[in-house]
Amino acid sequence: MNGAEALIRSAVASGVDVCFANPGTTEMPLVAALDRVRGVRPVLALFEGVCTGAADGYARLSDRPAMTLLHLGPGFANGIANLHNARRARSPLLNVIGDHASWHLAADAPLTSDIVSLANPVSGWVRSVRCAENIAADTVAAIEAALAPPGQVATLIVPADCQWNEAGGVAASARRMAPAAVASDRIERAARALRDGDAALLLGGVALRGAGLRAAARVRAASSARLLHDVFVARLERGADLPAIERLPYFPEQAIASLGNLRSLILAGTREPVSFFGYPNVPSRLAPEACERIELAAPGEDVVGALDALADALGAPRDVPALPRVERPRVPSGALDVATLGQAVAALQPEGAIIVDEAATSGAVWFALAGSAPRHTVLGLTGGAIGQGLPTAVGAAIACPQRKVIALQADGSGMYTAQALWTMARESLDVVVVLCANRAYRILQLEVARAGIAEPGPAARALTELSNPTLDWCALARGMGVPAVRAIDAGSFVKEFSRALADPGPALIEAWL
Amino acid sequence: MNGAEALIRSAVASGVDVCFANPGTTEMPLVAALDRVRGVRPVLALFEGVCTGAADGYARLSDRPAMTLLHLGPGFANGIANLHNARRARSPLLNVIGDHASWHLAADAPLTSDIVSLANPVSGWVRSVRCAENIAADTVAAIEAALAPPGQVATLIVPADCQWNEAGGVAASARRMAPAAVASDRIERAARALRDGDAALLLGGVALRGAGLRAAARVRAASSARLLHDVFVARLERGADLPAIERLPYFPEQAIASLGNLRSLILAGTREPVSFFGYPNVPSRLAPEACERIELAAPGEDVVGALDALADALGAPRDVPALPRVERPRVPSGALDVATLGQAVAALQPEGAIIVDEAATSGAVWFALAGSAPRHTVLGLTGGAIGQGLPTAVGAAIACPQRKVIALQADGSGMYTAQALWTMARESLDVVVVLCANRAYRILQLEVARAGIAEPGPAARALTELSNPTLDWCALARGMGVPAVRAIDAGSFVKEFSRALADPGPALIEAWL
Repeated sequence: MNGAEALIRSAVASGVDVCFANPGTTEMPLVAALDRVRGVRPVLALFEGVCTGAADGYARLSDRPAMTLLHLGPGFANGIANLHNARRARSPLLNVIGDHASWHLAADAPLTSDIVSLANPVSGWVRSVRCAENIAADTVAAIEAALAPPGQVATLIVPADCQWNEAGGVAASARRMAPAAVASDRIERAARALRDGDAALLLGGVALRGAGLRAAARVRAASSARLLHDVFVARLERGADLPAIERLPYFPEQAIASLGNLRSLILAGTREPVSFFGYPNVPSRLAPEACERIELAAPGEDVVGALDALADALGAPRDVPALPRVERPRVPSGALDVATLGQAVAALQPEGAIIVDEAATSGAVWFALAGSAPRHTVLGLTGGAIGQGLPTAVGAAIACPQRKVIALQADGSGMYTAQALWTMARESLDVVVVLCANRAYRILQLEVARAGIAEPGPAARALTELSNPTLDWCALARGMGVPAVRAIDAGSFVKEFSRALADPGPALIEAWL
Repeated sequence: MNGAEALIRSAVASGVDVCFANPGTTEMPLVAALDRVRGVRPVLALFEGVCTGAADGYARLSDRPAMTLLHLGPGFANGIANLHNARRARSPLLNVIGDHASWHLAADAPLTSDIVSLANPVSGWVRSVRCAENIAADTVAAIEAALAPPGQVATLIVPADCQWNEAGGVAASARRMAPAAVASDRIERAARALRDGDAALLLGGVALRGAGLRAAARVRAASSARLLHDVFVARLERGADLPAIERLPYFPEQAIASLGNLRSLILAGTREPVSFFGYPNVPSRLAPEACERIELAAPGEDVVGALDALADALGAPRDVPALPRVERPRVPSGALDVATLGQAVAALQPEGAIIVDEAATSGAVWFALAGSAPRHTVLGLTGGAIGQGLPTAVGAAIACPQRKVIALQADGSGMYTAQALWTMARESLDVVVVLCANRAYRILQLEVARAGIAEPGPAARALTELSNPTLDWCALARGMGVPAVRAIDAGSFVKEFSRALADPGPALIEAWL
C-alpha cells in the first residue's frame, strides 16, 4: 500500500465519506487511491473556493470530518476565503494539500510556495507529512484535531513522494473527544445574574440546535432573560417547534441600542459580541461597559448541559414552555422587492428546508418573517468572506439529500464562486438558488452613505454598481448546466419558486429587484 | 488631507495611473479619495483574482507600478494565486489592502485575520501602516520596493483609521533604481565557455525583449551557442523582426534530452531550469550534472548590457545577423483540433498582437507555428497557478489600448477567473478570447497516463473530465456582457476569428476541440 492509499483508508476508517476536490499533478496518487479504496465520494469543483465552502456546509450539517483535496499553495489559496468562514463556523474540516516531492522543494520550481504560511491563518492545526510511513498516523491526528470540540480546520500537507512511496498501513481510527463539562460555580454565577434581572443569554454553536434552544427556553421561562444569537451563525435550527430567539442587529449603533440596558450578558457557546467593522467614534464591544460578561460555556464546552443545569438551578420545570404556532406570511403579489421576496420565501419554504443565507441586504426581511415558518435550518456567513453561499449549498445538499436546500444569494457575493452551479448540476443536487439581483454592492452603497457621502462620485459609483454590463444570471446558470428563469414581479417569482420547490434537482431563479 | 487621499496622491506622483479594485467597507475612504484625486483610473473586478492577474498583465507590458485595492485577509487571499504568478514574473505590483481600524483588531471581529502571514509568501515587501502620518512615506516606500529591479510584489496593509485620520501630506515621488552593472570577470567567464563550445544561453526577464534578443543574436553569431528561454515566460517579444530562440520543453524527460550535450549553460536574467514537477527517478535539475552553470546576469542585473558586452568580448559585429523572413502557416480548413487551431491563430494574428497564453495542452502548436509570424508579445503562465489568462488579458488591454489582445485560454483554467469577462465588457477592452474547449483537464489526463494508469477508474475520470454537464462558454460570456460564438470546424473558426480581429471590443470564440 502506498502513502496515498494509506491516507484514504485511514480517512475512511475515521468517518470521511466525501472528498471535495480540485486536484492537480501533485495529487494524482491520491486520485488513483480514491479508485482503489471504497467509501469516499469524489466531488469535483472547478474552483477551490467551491471545495472549501462545500466542505464547510457539509460539516455544519453532518458533524463529520469534511475533506478537501487541493493543489499546492496557489490552489489552497483559492480556498482560503471560505476556510476563513469555516474557521469562524468552527467546522471540522480536513484539508489535504499535495505538495512537490520533498526532494524537489529545494529546486524552487514555479509552483513552490510557503504553504504553511498560507495555511496558518485559517487552520487550527497544520502539519507537513515527513515520510510515507507517517502518513496514516498524520491523517488520523488531523481528523482528531478537526473533530476536537467545538471543531476546527486541520490542514495536512502531503509531499508527492509521501503519496507514492510504500507506507506502513492504516492507523487506528480517530477518536472523537466529548466537550468538556462546565463547573458548577459557573452555573451558579450565571443563575445569580439571571435572578438579578436585566440579563441576556447570547447563544452560539450547538446551543442553536434543538436541545440547546429548548434548554435556553427553560432558562427564559424561569427568569426574564432575553435569548439572543449573533448576526451570522454557523447553523441555527429554527421554526415552529423550536423556541424563537432574537438576532442581534448588524450595524453596531443598532446592536448597542439593543443591548443598552443589560446588567449582564451570559455567553453560551460563543464569544462576546463585537462590531463587524470599526467605525469612527463607535466602540468595538457592543454590550455596555458596565454590563457584566459571564462565560457560561465557551465554544467546545458542554453548552447544552450547562444550559440545562442553569435551568435546573433556576427551578425551571423540565418541560419546555409552550411554543408559538406555525405562522407564515401570505403569498405576496405586486412588485418584486426585498419585502415581497422575503415574504414569498417564508410563505412557501418547505418543512425541513435548509436555507443558506448569503443574501446580504436582500435577506433581512426573509429572516424576520420566517422565524415561525415550519422547521428549517439557517446557515450564515460566519466569517464575512463573501462567496460562501453557493458552495455551502453544495455541501449542504450532499450532507442532507432528503432535504430541500434554498440558497438565498446576493448577486455581488454570488459572482465570487459561481462555479458552484456547475457542481450542483453535475451532482444533481436538490438546490433552489434564489439569486437576488439588485445589480449593486448595496451594502457598500450603504457604507458610502454612512460615511457621509451624499453624492457618490464616479469612482465610488463605478466600484459599487454592478450594472454596465448587467449580469445575466440565467445565462450564467445555463452555461453551467443549471436550469434558470428570471422573475420580474412577485407573481412570477411565486410561480417559479413553487415549481422549483416541487421539482428535484438544481434550479436558479433570478429575482429581479 | 486624510490618509486615504495622501496615499492616492503619493501613488499618482510615483506613476500609478490604474487601480484594479474590489473594495469593501474597510477601503471606503480610499474609494472616496479616488474621487477627490485625479489621475487614477478605477477598474472594478468582481473577484480579486481578476484584480491581481490584471495588475500583473498591466505591469508586464507597462513597466509601471500596477496597483490593486483589496479587502482584508479573505479578499487578499482570493488574489493570491495570481500574485504567485506575478511574483514569478517579477512584476512591479503595489497591493493596497484595507484592514480593520487599528483599535478594532483586538476585538477579533469576523473578518479579522493574519494578513501578513497570507501576504508574505507572494510578496517581496510587506508593511502595515502604523498611523496616518506615515501613510505617504509608506506608499512611496512600497512603490520603490515594487520597482526595485527586476520588480516584485509589494503589499501595503492600511488600517481604516489610518485612511480616515488626518495625514501630513504627500511624500516625494518614488525613485526608480537602475539595474546593477555586471562585472567584467563574469563576462569573460561566459566568453571562455562560449569559445569552448557546446554552450547555451538561457534568457529571461528583459533579455526576452528586443534589445536583449538582438544582443543574444550577436552572441550566437560569434559562437555556436544555442539561445533558449524557459517554458513559461513573463513577457517574450517575438516575430519576424526579432531573432528566434528555442523554448525549453515542458516535460522534464524532453528538457533533459534537449540539454544533454551541454558543457555549459549561461544564465542571463533567469535562474537555472528545473522540472515543473518532481517525478520518481527524474532529477529536479534539467541540465546535466557535469554542465557548468554560469550566471552572466542575475534577474535585476543589467542583463542587456551584459549580453552586449559578451558579444563584444567575442568580437561579434555590432550589426544583428540577418533575420528569417515573416512566414505564416496557411489558413487551415477541415476539422478543428489543436493543430488547425494553432495554425489559424498563427496565420491570422495581427501585427503587434499581445498573446496571453494559458491554453495549456491546446497552445503548443500555436506557439511553435507563430515564431516567424509578424511581431507579437507573449505573456505566459509564470507561476503555474491557473486562472491567469483572462485577468492578464484585462491588464494587457488596459496597458496597451492600441494593440489587439488575444487570450488563448484553456477551458479548465478559464473557469477559475471567468469573472474577468465582465471587466472586459465594462471597460470595452479590445480582447479576443479563443476559448479552447476540450472539456477536460487534459494535462491531468496526461499525468494519469504518465503515472502508468492505462485505464483510469471512475474517480480519476470524474476528477479530470469537464463533461457532464458540458460548459457552455458562449452562455457564460454573454451572461457577463461579452459577445460570443462557437466554432466547430476550422472554417468557422477562421471566419469568426477574422471577424473578431476586425471588430474592436471584447469577443469570445468557443473553439470546440
